[in-house]
Amino acid sequence: MSGEEASQEGVVNLGFARVDSARRERCGRAEVIFGEGKTPVEIARIASTIHGREGHVLVTRVSTDQAEVVQTQLPAAIYHERARCLTLGKPPVNNSSVTIGILCAGTSDLPVAEEAAVTLQAFGRRVERIHDVGVAGIHRLLNEIDRIRACGVLIVVAGMEGALPSAVAGLVEIPVIAVPTSVGYGASFGGLTALLGMVNSCANGVTVTNIDNGFGAACAADAILRLLEKRVQSEKESSR
Amino acid sequence: MSGEEASQEGVVNLGFARVDSARRERCGRAEVIFGEGKTPVEIARIASTIHGREGHVLVTRVSTDQAEVVQTQLPAAIYHERARCLTLGKPPVNNSSVTIGILCAGTSDLPVAEEAAVTLQAFGRRVERIHDVGVAGIHRLLNEIDRIRACGVLIVVAGMEGALPSAVAGLVEIPVIAVPTSVGYGASFGGLTALLGMVNSCANGVTVTNIDNGFGAACAADAILRLLEKRVQSEKESSR
Amino acid sequence: MSGEEASQEGVVNLGFARVDSARRERCGRAEVIFGEGKTPVEIARIASTIHGREGHVLVTRVSTDQAEVVQTQLPAAIYHERARCLTLGKPPVNNSSVTIGILCAGTSDLPVAEEAAVTLQAFGRRVERIHDVGVAGIHRLLNEIDRIRACGVLIVVAGMEGALPSAVAGLVEIPVIAVPTSVGYGASFGGLTALLGMVNSCANGVTVTNIDNGFGAACAADAILRLLEKRVQSEKESSR
Amino acid sequence: MSGEEASQEGVVNLGFARVDSARRERCGRAEVIFGEGKTPVEIARIASTIHGREGHVLVTRVSTDQAEVVQTQLPAAIYHERARCLTLGKPPVNNSSVTIGILCAGTSDLPVAEEAAVTLQAFGRRVERIHDVGVAGIHRLLNEIDRIRACGVLIVVAGMEGALPSAVAGLVEIPVIAVPTSVGYGASFGGLTALLGMVNSCANGVTVTNIDNGFGAACAADAILRLLEKRVQSEKESSR
Amino acid sequence: MSGEEASQEGVVNLGFARVDSARRERCGRAEVIFGEGKTPVEIARIASTIHGREGHVLVTRVSTDQAEVVQTQLPAAIYHERARCLTLGKPPVNNSSVTIGILCAGTSDLPVAEEAAVTLQAFGRRVERIHDVGVAGIHRLLNEIDRIRACGVLIVVAGMEGALPSAVAGLVEIPVIAVPTSVGYGASFGGLTALLGMVNSCANGVTVTNIDNGFGAACAADAILRLLEKRVQSEKESSR
Amino acid sequence: MSGEEASQEGVVNLGFARVDSARRERCGRAEVIFGEGKTPVEIARIASTIHGREGHVLVTRVSTDQAEVVQTQLPAAIYHERARCLTLGKPPVNNSSVTIGILCAGTSDLPVAEEAAVTLQAFGRRVERIHDVGVAGIHRLLNEIDRIRACGVLIVVAGMEGALPSAVAGLVEIPVIAVPTSVGYGASFGGLTALLGMVNSCANGVTVTNIDNGFGAACAADAILRLLEKRVQSEKESSR
Amino acid sequence: MSGEEASQEGVVNLGFARVDSARRERCGRAEVIFGEGKTPVEIARIASTIHGREGHVLVTRVSTDQAEVVQTQLPAAIYHERARCLTLGKPPVNNSSVTIGILCAGTSDLPVAEEAAVTLQAFGRRVERIHDVGVAGIHRLLNEIDRIRACGVLIVVAGMEGALPSAVAGLVEIPVIAVPTSVGYGASFGGLTALLGMVNSCANGVTVTNIDNGFGAACAADAILRLLEKRVQSEKESSR
Amino acid sequence: MSGEEASQEGVVNLGFARVDSARRERCGRAEVIFGEGKTPVEIARIASTIHGREGHVLVTRVSTDQAEVVQTQLPAAIYHERARCLTLGKPPVNNSSVTIGILCAGTSDLPVAEEAAVTLQAFGRRVERIHDVGVAGIHRLLNEIDRIRACGVLIVVAGMEGALPSAVAGLVEIPVIAVPTSVGYGASFGGLTALLGMVNSCANGVTVTNIDNGFGAACAADAILRLLEKRVQSEKESSR
Repeated sequence: MSGEEASQEGVVNLGFARVDSARRERCGRAEVIFGEGKTPVEIARIASTIHGREGHVLVTRVSTDQAEVVQTQLPAAIYHERARCLTLGKPPVNNSSVTIGILCAGTSDLPVAEEAAVTLQAFGRRVERIHDVGVAGIHRLLNEIDRIRACGVLIVVAGMEGALPSAVAGLVEIPVIAVPTSVGYGASFGGLTALLGMVNSCANGVTVTNIDNGFGAACAADAILRLLEKRVQSEKESSR
Repeated sequence: MSGEEASQEGVVNLGFARVDSARRERCGRAEVIFGEGKTPVEIARIASTIHGREGHVLVTRVSTDQAEVVQTQLPAAIYHERARCLTLGKPPVNNSSVTIGILCAGTSDLPVAEEAAVTLQAFGRRVERIHDVGVAGIHRLLNEIDRIRACGVLIVVAGMEGALPSAVAGLVEIPVIAVPTSVGYGASFGGLTALLGMVNSCANGVTVTNIDNGFGAACAADAILRLLEKRVQSEKESSR
Repeated sequence: MSGEEASQEGVVNLGFARVDSARRERCGRAEVIFGEGKTPVEIARIASTIHGREGHVLVTRVSTDQAEVVQTQLPAAIYHERARCLTLGKPPVNNSSVTIGILCAGTSDLPVAEEAAVTLQAFGRRVERIHDVGVAGIHRLLNEIDRIRACGVLIVVAGMEGALPSAVAGLVEIPVIAVPTSVGYGASFGGLTALLGMVNSCANGVTVTNIDNGFGAACAADAILRLLEKRVQSEKESSR
Repeated sequence: MSGEEASQEGVVNLGFARVDSARRERCGRAEVIFGEGKTPVEIARIASTIHGREGHVLVTRVSTDQAEVVQTQLPAAIYHERARCLTLGKPPVNNSSVTIGILCAGTSDLPVAEEAAVTLQAFGRRVERIHDVGVAGIHRLLNEIDRIRACGVLIVVAGMEGALPSAVAGLVEIPVIAVPTSVGYGASFGGLTALLGMVNSCANGVTVTNIDNGFGAACAADAILRLLEKRVQSEKESSR
Repeated sequence: MSGEEASQEGVVNLGFARVDSARRERCGRAEVIFGEGKTPVEIARIASTIHGREGHVLVTRVSTDQAEVVQTQLPAAIYHERARCLTLGKPPVNNSSVTIGILCAGTSDLPVAEEAAVTLQAFGRRVERIHDVGVAGIHRLLNEIDRIRACGVLIVVAGMEGALPSAVAGLVEIPVIAVPTSVGYGASFGGLTALLGMVNSCANGVTVTNIDNGFGAACAADAILRLLEKRVQSEKESSR
Repeated sequence: MSGEEASQEGVVNLGFARVDSARRERCGRAEVIFGEGKTPVEIARIASTIHGREGHVLVTRVSTDQAEVVQTQLPAAIYHERARCLTLGKPPVNNSSVTIGILCAGTSDLPVAEEAAVTLQAFGRRVERIHDVGVAGIHRLLNEIDRIRACGVLIVVAGMEGALPSAVAGLVEIPVIAVPTSVGYGASFGGLTALLGMVNSCANGVTVTNIDNGFGAACAADAILRLLEKRVQSEKESSR
Repeated sequence: MSGEEASQEGVVNLGFARVDSARRERCGRAEVIFGEGKTPVEIARIASTIHGREGHVLVTRVSTDQAEVVQTQLPAAIYHERARCLTLGKPPVNNSSVTIGILCAGTSDLPVAEEAAVTLQAFGRRVERIHDVGVAGIHRLLNEIDRIRACGVLIVVAGMEGALPSAVAGLVEIPVIAVPTSVGYGASFGGLTALLGMVNSCANGVTVTNIDNGFGAACAADAILRLLEKRVQSEKESSR
Repeated sequence: MSGEEASQEGVVNLGFARVDSARRERCGRAEVIFGEGKTPVEIARIASTIHGREGHVLVTRVSTDQAEVVQTQLPAAIYHERARCLTLGKPPVNNSSVTIGILCAGTSDLPVAEEAAVTLQAFGRRVERIHDVGVAGIHRLLNEIDRIRACGVLIVVAGMEGALPSAVAGLVEIPVIAVPTSVGYGASFGGLTALLGMVNSCANGVTVTNIDNGFGAACAADAILRLLEKRVQSEKESSR
């Protein structure tokens, strides 16, 4: 497999990977790199290619070991340890005034919550972190209700039985995106119990991502804000 | 298979079934009949045998069709439709002042909650029904918090994601017995999701029964009260 | 259980059910009735209570048999057969210009897609139905790409392997809510395969509801539009 | 994330965790720390905070490696190796005369049984250890029947097929809390087989905790004893 | 498909089925017909073919409806209702003095136990039925220990948690064949829980058949007795 | 926990374990030690106790690391690497002329097959090893058919789809005990697929052990031979 | 929903369904109708549309009840009862000399085997039916080996443990397509065991379809033959 | 176990393994060695035996560590790192002009795709690699449609939701063999989700191999090409 770049419409072919250069036009966002299973060299090359075109790039699921090697090649890259993310370059600036609340049930859920937070910040979004508000101490959640209701979208992260999104969604009228985590033991089955619990939420309108998929939740929240910005923009234009 | 009764120590042999006549001595309670899969004639014969020895009897999981036939043979039997239970005779009287609270998340969980309630009443217990207090409207639960805290033991019945026991157990310091129900659809898998959710409860000390097993929860609650009565009795005796 | 109504804060107690009368304030929407497992009489009574307070009401998961009985008690109720929904009264009017696209993979997925559509219409939303565009004939999807991109939010309904949301989400930049259906046979396991497929979507930002939960998807889409309307409103106010 | 403590009602905010300082009032017991997934430094800080308020603290699921580091920071902490627990300070004294029997099926189940035992001792309870009494040698269980019946509550720990609770519950009339363990191989599926077996127990009234959750079983047993103490107390008061 | 019989080595071809006429030579037993999913006419034709060659035939899994039609065509056939079996002709006579004990945990397990019993009787074996000896009343089992130990092989039938084989196998030194049944509800998953429990038995040497497969257990027991008869025979011959 | 031996009827109490000294009388065989999860010191102490009483002892599931330490304490112990077993002392001599055939499908199944073989040899049995005869090359199996038919009992070990027992059981009339192994990858799920396949065998009379449970299969085969020896013995006595 | 036909490129829009009229060009075959879940009227309309364009049409998964109604509207339609298929019009003629062998393990697997056979005949293919050759009587399979080896492609249908494809694929060098069926009971889980067994086949090169998907296997076999015809054709052309 | 070679019909017995020397005649291909779980010495010996008879040999699932040792014994062996394969000797030459396309959804799926590619090249086939064409960027797939349609058979490799085969099979009329990979996280369950998705493909005629089984897919594709070559050959001969 040679490594030269061969350009085709919407694709930069690195030989071992095709960078989807048309994704911004099609999906509103530059490609993000999933670090797991890639060599640091591959990560660095893809990151460098995207950074060259977009001015910034985000890599998720990067271990400490991978990060160290990548940083020798891309010294400007910043590693967010808890979130296991790596960023390079300055994110775009969004003027939207909407904040995305990121709730998590316990401290063990923090890595997933932080993956969502760092991703959203890399997309130029404003986030509010509201941690350790699990249902077994419901007053902790109720204590934060004003901060929660001030948000425009909520990402609710929980492991074990995954009950937090149901309780939250019963208290607010804004979109709630639930993220099950693999936190737990025994019959938590690596997050399957939380996933099933969230999918079966008795609170209407909760939607769910894959287990530990803080990144996916961030993307979903971001898509909602992009829609919102467009509409606000078109309203402004039409009201002129 | 002949039908004559052959007595052995602790067993009345009806040919098609052995009535565990020593169970009261051993386990503190007369045998209860599980109606499902038995013919009405079998139910009537076993019920009649136990009633003859104990003065009262409870049959659970009795369909309307089964009940009708049994009642032609045992006209004094009372059918509790929602609970799918059949009782015959007057239950023992317990002087314990402890009430067992039976909470359920939604109206669809009522048959299971009622199975627990009718069973406890057949055991001579006092029950408090607190229905439709699911986590998606947490204020409904908080509204009832005084009645809930006034109970000595709680049976918490919920289907779908089974989140109610976690929320309840975080609010009280009394024993909480969780009963998952088969209420739900899609990925609720006949109650498996609720069962797994409850087993993984982030609230410490919640214990769980089989799916739809209101009867089992009632037995567990009853065992706690029996223990309590014995100790109160022995305290009284020792304080004389 | 007596049937008299006892009012508590935010709750109308019908004895067999508690109507969550504060839900509009808390969650932005009046309560919707889940018909499955309720008797027609119960449905009619709850529906009547909500209709009296809100002017309109939606009941989901209503069988033809249930509907017939309810309609004898509430003759003004309309039954939407394919969607298995029942509506009574005129829905609120929303002036939002955003359309919600409802895509489905095959004709067998229509009942779920229609549940979403009827629900959204009962919430006063505008929907665009785009049916039978499964991935095995990708040109059918590409043929509709302009109608799809003109929507503000997409609900994508599919059974079997549940691949449609991935293909759709790779083509648009708006929020995509995936609904797995129980359509399929063999190893589709009543929709579990589609659910798992959607949760594992390689397209970022897809969020997922329970199997066959068209109603839940509608609620999620509606929450996005409510957020949008609020922001547009506050923008207008601040720009004055 | 700054680390300063910000006090809110019922919560001590350590930045990375919220210590639920109102739990004693609400749930009758100070918070216990779940060690798994926390750094030794985090464990030490939370433990120190709780110890400062309560005079004693329990940490569960602590590995030998974690314990060593924590003990350098909290030299007075005691590590219970088999139970994988760490305690600091003197537990409260309870005058209840009720003993909690902890049975286990095989020697491999000891870590879980010991987690229950150490937890209960940290709660000031009296425990009786009855080990290695699995059903494949039923005489071992019958040999111990007097010690077993002398207890007030039983915690029954078993892996593999999880049959012990059924056999035990058929012999006693006191509450039986079953704890499945991950002991086994092949189709034991990390304890799922034992969990399902216990949930399906043919002996009525058995309730079940999560796999390997000796701590949860201890909490459930403790809640029963607290109820008992309260009632004995109120009996005494009312009889004066 | 024509229906004429075309003979090939070891096979009678009925067009819609191949009767394995060489099975007696190869496996020591004539073919047994599995009735489920076959039309009564197909059952009658295959049964008639085997009966013509062997002098007797057994059909398992025959519903009452199927049996009625088959009996109109084969009036000499006897229907064993509880066992759901149909027999035609006189079984072979075995002179072996070994008895096969068939234990079952509860009365609901009787159909499966009877399938094993009727099958063994059709093979000319002597069976001892020991019913309703589940582990939740272990004295019922211990009461029967002499009858149990007098058997040469045991078939142990149980549903729910499937604990009986472990308890039995710990009490005897003869072969124990466990048969899980689909008896149970909730998390018994149609017998899967009992199957897993039995496969994980802590008692060594228990072997297991498919759920509800009383017939298979009978075949396994029969194979043991055939082996035994051969060896006794060859001993006799060699000792002459 | 003190370590002194306290004797109770049928039990030697080592403190951390109860040696079931009555097992020979009850189950016909001395206790065998399951090494997994025990420390080498525990293994050595239990092994030494049993060896002292029985003259020989078998330990299964012993890793190379465990074995090395145990052998420093018990230098006469022999480690069977492939079978992961450790034996000490001379096994009993059985005069039975019956051979147990141990078939395995592939070379990867050898450890499980060898566990069965070494166990049977420790019980004084004669074994015939017939390896690498999987169904994908059915002639390899047919080539060995005479050796196979000369055995009295067969243990058939296979991973992946676990088809070998069905093919074998269709060729012989002796007892067939199937052992699924965890050999395979992907959807073999650690042997679950093989287990399910064997339990569903279309060949009647196959019985199944747990995944990788060569030891259990050996015990089952041994129980058959013990039955056989007793009957041959009683025949001889009665014929005198 | 109006019913008028609106033509778009490659699609005939019937309102409730889009007929993929370009499928022949794209995939080499006209669309086949999946009857399950469609009303007879819908089936008749779609069938009529395709028949009008193609001259013939196949409907699979048609119940007897559906078929009767469809036949009143399309009297020329032929119903294949065992295969649950309906055909209308004369299939295309293929001159390929390759035969597709359809093997099935037991008579209960016939409906699935026949679905494959009728489908292939509707595609103009030649099929050879080889029934009831399951592995429990391997000589039945070996008896047919010449007919089997004379085929060009094999479809192997089996339920229960699904072992037949492994045995067959070890005997031939032609493509083997395995079809698991839902035949079985207990732990066959509606065909999942057979599916997993086939996917794990120790014979290399077996590929698998969904449970009971005789139609899919026929499509796969047909695609192989189409490839073959094309190459033979192009060889002929190039050799001229 | 002695190591000498004992020849039987079609088998070379190496003591620890039987080399199936008749496989070429029976299945059209020499035996391939599955490296996992074998020692390097065993691999080298079997490889050497096959190489001696066939002139070339392929070993799959060889780790870097195993490969290094094998190469010290067989220095001419070549290790294909990404494919985890080892080859020795020159593969046979096939004159077939048909190319096998190997598509994969993402770069993480490459090892499985390469296992298929290296295997096919070892069988003397021509392969076309088309990587990183997952459905979330459908234009990447459409860009390659001409190269894809030029192939004779397609192997489509994908993890996560496994949607690629459905999209591909809807675009072509040639055989499509789907290979699920264990790529993914959370609810991908080691490839089970992709496997189930592919088995449920809405595109007819897709067949599926085990998870990560690139080798099996290569064998299936090779069998198709062998069939094709034979027919072309026989056509040529008959046309002479």
